[in-house]
Parts: sequence; structure tokens; C-alpha cells
Amino acid sequence: MEPGMIHSAGFRLAGAGSYEPLGIVTSNELDSRCGRPLGTAAKLGIRERRYACAGETSSFMAAEAARRAAGDAGWDLGEIDVLIGACGVMEQPIPGTAPLVQRRLGLGGSGIPAFDVNATCLSFLPALDHAIAGMTLKGWRRVVIFAADIASAALDHDDLEASAIFGDGAAAVALEAGGSSRILASRLETYGDHSELCRLEAGGTRLRPHEDLPGFLAASRFRMEGIALFKATARRFPPFIARLLAEAGLGSEDVASVIPHQASAPALAHLARALGGDPARIVDTFATLGNRIASSLPHSLAVARREGRLAPGSASLLVGSSAGLSLGGTVIRW
Amino acid sequence: MEPGMIHSAGFRLAGAGSYEPLGIVTSNELDSRCGRPLGTAAKLGIRERRYACAGETSSFMAAEAARRAAGDAGWDLGEIDVLIGACGVMEQPIPGTAPLVQRRLGLGGSGIPAFDVNATCLSFLPALDHAIAGMTLKGWRRVVIFAADIASAALDHDDLEASAIFGDGAAAVALEAGGSSRILASRLETYGDHSELCRLEAGGTRLRPHEDLPGFLAASRFRMEGIALFKATARRFPPFIARLLAEAGLGSEDVASVIPHQASAPALAHLARALGGDPARIVDTFATLGNRIASSLPHSLAVARREGRLAPGSASLLVGSSAGLSLGGTVIRW
Repeated sequence: MEPGMIHSAGFRLAGAGSYEPLGIVTSNELDSRCGRPLGTAAKLGIRERRYACAGETSSFMAAEAARRAAGDAGWDLGEIDVLIGACGVMEQPIPGTAPLVQRRLGLGGSGIPAFDVNATCLSFLPALDHAIAGMTLKGWRRVVIFAADIASAALDHDDLEASAIFGDGAAAVALEAGGSSRILASRLETYGDHSELCRLEAGGTRLRPHEDLPGFLAASRFRMEGIALFKATARRFPPFIARLLAEAGLGSEDVASVIPHQASAPALAHLARALGGDPARIVDTFATLGNRIASSLPHSLAVARREGRLAPGSASLLVGSSAGLSLGGTVIRW
Repeated sequence: MEPGMIHSAGFRLAGAGSYEPLGIVTSNELDSRCGRPLGTAAKLGIRERRYACAGETSSFMAAEAARRAAGDAGWDLGEIDVLIGACGVMEQPIPGTAPLVQRRLGLGGSGIPAFDVNATCLSFLPALDHAIAGMTLKGWRRVVIFAADIASAALDHDDLEASAIFGDGAAAVALEAGGSSRILASRLETYGDHSELCRLEAGGTRLRPHEDLPGFLAASRFRMEGIALFKATARRFPPFIARLLAEAGLGSEDVASVIPHQASAPALAHLARALGGDPARIVDTFATLGNRIASSLPHSLAVARREGRLAPGSASLLVGSSAGLSLGGTVIRW
């Protein structure tokens, strides 16, 4: 019996894939467009990021990533049992993104369950819990989890630090029941007192464009109090990691690969300090892709898989923070 | 071993509660406001519904419902382990609704996990699966699931059948690990080919008010092709119910109470025909509350509990359809 998940079935990461939008925007270009002196690349540690064009919707990118994950697994799309969406922001409020992706995969008449799980940038973690639970308790065999986000849809480029670090993209994983991988621990801690530090307010039931258009438009840009958010997160991170690893029965030195949400350069540096050990075990794609909201975590996992970092028997730590404020992590023994 | 959930832990519905917004709007009032002859009440089978006022946000109503559910269970709010949101539409895109509700409950510094699950009107069903899985696999003890929706935020009153059937509200349940209730089967079938029959397109990553305001505003009303939706759902419902009950090892006559999503009067009548037996076993609040999107299912469960319909040892069928198109159902032995 594992200490974290009491009765988790074994599973296998059968495949992974991602989709990078075609538009590459360098930090120098962004500085020029915004009429400010060059320097964002050095200041924020990001050379370039991708922005989706009109046809690259969330469901389009997610379907491409899902196809690549299924292809990597050697599955026909028709073999997928369950499709779970784990986006930070949905493509549209009704229906959820998963049914839209199901349709794009040609599975819109299949009846396979398609639903979404949301914990903003950490959505992949409760989605992964749900997938493994479905394998353990409900006999699911092949599950695809996808995440796609289009940060560029709502950035305020007058606010450098709340805009230049973000990029667009999608990623997906194909999970199969019955392998030798196991979740050793999984933990989400939410501190809603900090919900205002990172927010996008327009687009749900509260603000209504037909009743107050100026108010709606003013609230339709993403807002982040970067310094306050970093502080609120950073002081909670070391004890969070300690609780998570204790639950997994591991020390930091037992973790072979760290698969983080790519929040920001300072956040990745803080993670490296909090964990200690060799920083090369941390997957870091921030400089060329930035923070891709909820798609960062499965994308980092896809990169780790491609780079051969997930050796059988080794342990990975998936970890990050999100709007909420939430801290989340999952420890997997492959 | 149960046929549906292979290793589900026992649980207990410890409490339930709901919140009804203060504004009662009769169908006659609605007809008058819209300048049309009276007749909606008789035509659509709905006398009145509630509309939320400005202060009655999704998170406000959800927190009230959660307080009532916890109170009904005899819990202090501080005893809640996990908070799961199951709204149809979120209060705002970032963060999710669960962190906002956590904060309103005075738990914003607690660190308890707060995240959201979405399957539009059926969100409660995968959220319930997730809660029971967390109890079974992760040792969760006390979980609150809430749903709140404000349909009135996005209705087009020029389209009678896509507006007059909807109302606002919230509901919540308090679940405790270790009781004698068990999920016998739970099933979600999604047919994304019908995703356009029921939709709210503005408010996510695809349509952007700063790039195309007229297009955004035009898409910011809920749209439903009622007849096509009813047909697509109705032909799939009887075989869906048969598969679900077979998975649970029950016949229709073994179901003591039916706890449906309150989709519409024809949908409830169709459900009664599909199930056969005594129609009085179906909880029906449609005439006075309408379709409250994702809050209908947990509200119907709260009503069934209050009316003493959940006798120990008896079986309930939670069931409905949603945008997606999805059909969903869960069979519980209390």
C-alpha cells in the first residue's frame, strides 16, 4: 500500500504530445510593438513565445496535441475511452472544451465521456487524479487528458510583467491502465484569500456586457499582482513540498525529474532552491515558450518523456502554483 | 464487489442545502415584460423561476448553499476537507469558482483543495465521482460539492423556449466517508457532434471583445435549438438508461427515487415514459424553479433528502442530459 493514493491501480504513460502555435513572437519584437526599449528578454528571462492565430483555437490546438499523444502511444483515436479537458480557461462557456475537442477528433458520435476539470494552471493535476481513479474504480482503459490555453487572448501589454511571460499552446497525454507506474502522492492546497492576485474577471456569470459594457471591457484583461503573488506563493512552497514528499515517502534526493508548471523565471529559480540538488533535473522550457497556463504542466511532461527522463522505477515530481491561489503537486513512480 | 465502481468506499450523504435567489419572476410577469400574450406558464409548464439580483453572485449563492449543507450535516465549516465546484458556467474565468467560494466560507487561509469540474448541466455527476474516488483512494473525509448558476445573465428573451425555462440558484451537498451508501454505477456519454445545439459562445478564449465587439456581443446570449436537442437526446436516452441500470445490476423497478436534472417539462415527461413505473418517484421542481443549469441536480437531491425519499438500502437514480451533448447518470444505494 502506497502512503498517498491508498489503492491506486498501476498505469502507463503510453504517449504524449504538444502543439505549438505557428506565430513566434520574440521579446524584442514585443518591445518594439509596445514602443518600449529592448530589455524584456533579459529582464524576464524569456526570448520568445508563441501566439495562436485565428484558426488556432483552444479546441483545434488541443485536438492536434491529443492526436500526437495518441499517435505516440500507437493508438487509433477510436481506442480512446475517456477524454478529460484540463484547460485554464475554456474555449467558450457552454459546452465545455472537452466536447469540442471530442468532435474535432472525429469522436463526436462515439459517446465516450468528455468533461473538464479546472484548477487554472494546475488543472492537469486533479485531471490526472480523476483519470487514475477512473482506471482504478471504473475500469477505464485508455484516457487522454489535454490542456490548451490562449493567454494572448486577454493580455494587457501595458503591464509588462503580467503579459510578456505568457504564451499559447496545447499538450496532451495518453494514459493506459495496467502498467507499472503509480501515483505515490498528490496534493492540492488552495488559499482563496489570495484569489484577487491573479484574475480574469470578465467572461462568466458575474460581469455582463449587455448591462455594463465599459465595466465588462475593463475587466476583460488578465490582471496579476506579480510581486504579491510571488511572495504569497514562495513562503508556502517549501512546507508544501515537504508535506507532499513526506506523503510520497520520498526525500528530495529521490526525485529524478522535476516537471514544473513554467510560471516564471523567478518561480523556477525558487523551485530549484526549495528542492536543492541538481537543478538539471528540472524541465525548463520557459525561455522559449513562456508560461502557457494549464498546458505548461502536460507540455513539460511531454518534454521529459521525449528526453528520456522518465526511466522505469524512477520518480518524478509534477509541481506548480496557480491562480486560486493554489499549490499543487503529484509524485509518480514510473 | 459492485459491478459499476469496482472498489468504491462507502460514504454518507451527511447534509444538503440550497439557495434560492430572492427575485421571483412569474411567467405572466415575463410575458408582460416581453410584450407578448400570456401563455408561457401553460405552454412550457413553468409558473415562476428565480432570478439573482446584483449581490447574488454565483460564489455568494454557492457559499450560502454550502453553509446550509454543512449545517444540515452538523459540521463546522472548518471540518470540510475538500471543496469541489460543479457549476455549469463559472463566475469568472480566472480563478475558478471553487477558490472564490472557499474564500467566502472563511476558509481562504485553510489550504483545503478547491477546484472545479465541468460537464455543463451534469457537472455534479463527475464531481461526485471525483469526491467518492478521493474518499476511496486518498483518505478524504468530508467533501462539499456545490453548484451555482445564473442563467439570467445570458438569456435572450426574444427566444421564448431558450429563455423562459431557465432560473437561477445554487445547491450543495456534504459527503462523509465511511457510511453505508455506495455508487453502484456512474456513466457519462458525450456526443460532441451536437455541441452546437446548446451553446454560449462568448466568454472564453475564442471570441474577443477587444478584437470584434459586435461579434462578441452577438454571441454572448445563450442559444438552444430546442427541438433538435430534444430529438437528439430523446432517441439516446432509453438505451443509455438501460446500459446504466445494467451496469448497476438493477431493473427500473428497483429504483425508489429518481433525481433528475430539471431540463424542461417535455424532458421530464420523456424520462417518466422511458423509466415506466410510478412517476411519483421522480423529483420534479420544474414548475416553480425551472431549469437551474448545473444546480438542478444537487438541488433535486437536496429536495429528495428533505422529503425523506432516500431510505437506507433504497436505490436512487441521478440522471439527466446537458449541453455537449452529454447524457449522464449515477445509481446510488443508500
